[in-house]
Amino acid sequence: MKLLEQVIQDKGKIIGNDIVKVDMFLNHQIDVSLLNESGKEFYRLFKDDNINKIVTIEASGIGIACVAAQYFNVPVVFAKKGIHRNVGNDIYTGEVFSFTKGEKTQIGISRNYLTAEDRILIIDDFLANGGAVKGLIHIAEQAGAEVKGIGICIEKGFQPGGKELREMGYKLESLAIINSIDDGKIIFG
Amino acid sequence: MKLLEQVIQDKGKIIGNDIVKVDMFLNHQIDVSLLNESGKEFYRLFKDDNINKIVTIEASGIGIACVAAQYFNVPVVFAKKGIHRNVGNDIYTGEVFSFTKGEKTQIGISRNYLTAEDRILIIDDFLANGGAVKGLIHIAEQAGAEVKGIGICIEKGFQPGGKELREMGYKLESLAIINSIDDGKIIFG
Repeated sequence: MKLLEQVIQDKGKIIGNDIVKVDMFLNHQIDVSLLNESGKEFYRLFKDDNINKIVTIEASGIGIACVAAQYFNVPVVFAKKGIHRNVGNDIYTGEVFSFTKGEKTQIGISRNYLTAEDRILIIDDFLANGGAVKGLIHIAEQAGAEVKGIGICIEKGFQPGGKELREMGYKLESLAIINSIDDGKIIFG
Repeated sequence: MKLLEQVIQDKGKIIGNDIVKVDMFLNHQIDVSLLNESGKEFYRLFKDDNINKIVTIEASGIGIACVAAQYFNVPVVFAKKGIHRNVGNDIYTGEVFSFTKGEKTQIGISRNYLTAEDRILIIDDFLANGGAVKGLIHIAEQAGAEVKGIGICIEKGFQPGGKELREMGYKLESLAIINSIDDGKIIFG
């Protein structure tokens, strides 16, 4: 999506050769009109995939998922962080390893809100190593829900998550793919 | 808002005499069409208050704030949890005491995204003792931002947060106020 690439180029803050901070429009302050255009684009990409639910993870995925869900006319379910396996049998849990923070987080979704009838679109803000998406896929598998698609705002093409998920056969669409960051310039894929 | 009261009555899960779980439509699974109606209603209530930014707190406030922000055509900023005072001078911090969990959480907003030019609407899903809203007000005060209004989906009228904030002079509007829970029946105010 050209608009998103433009906003990343104009407003993103490059740190070194592998980090672009986008907390001025995507994951701290949120440009809601940009989310709206992203939501429209996700709908264009996945409208024929018979989605009945959008699944994301707190916190920054929630706004993107809710705005997109308006186009699909489906509910959103977000995985909560800090859920522990010992909370009982009413929650599906997964584990997300963050390379940025170097730590594992437990995530969970109530069994009431994800079932074998669900055909889900996973939405998230960022894809790098794919830890969050893989955690959500693991939860979907436990529920028997079908992962019909994965929609990402910004994929870091130089990190392996996107390649791995596509090789696993998932329909993964990223609105902007950063292929490299070179001397303060972002090269999109 | 009659629609929200109806949904709370029909789908909310009453526990004892003071808890209504709404995680089937508001804070785990999210009924986005209900958020949309809530967003319209917040706009009707606050459209003349010259709002230029909506401020909320992760996680469940984010979806509500983003959908509402579309009507106001303003950005959203959400306070992050688990921010510590020692992160440096670029973040305003506040403290939220949760009576439910019996613990304090540090919250923070980057100085870049809240300034003395901002006229904010604080939005959140629930108001009971008002801890989260008071934490956000404390942050707004540090930034010199003006709190033009507070919009809440569900207020527990039998807990003191709403009364205190109104007595402090804030324009606080709640889309549904639960006055009491009596023998499995919810009485709205």
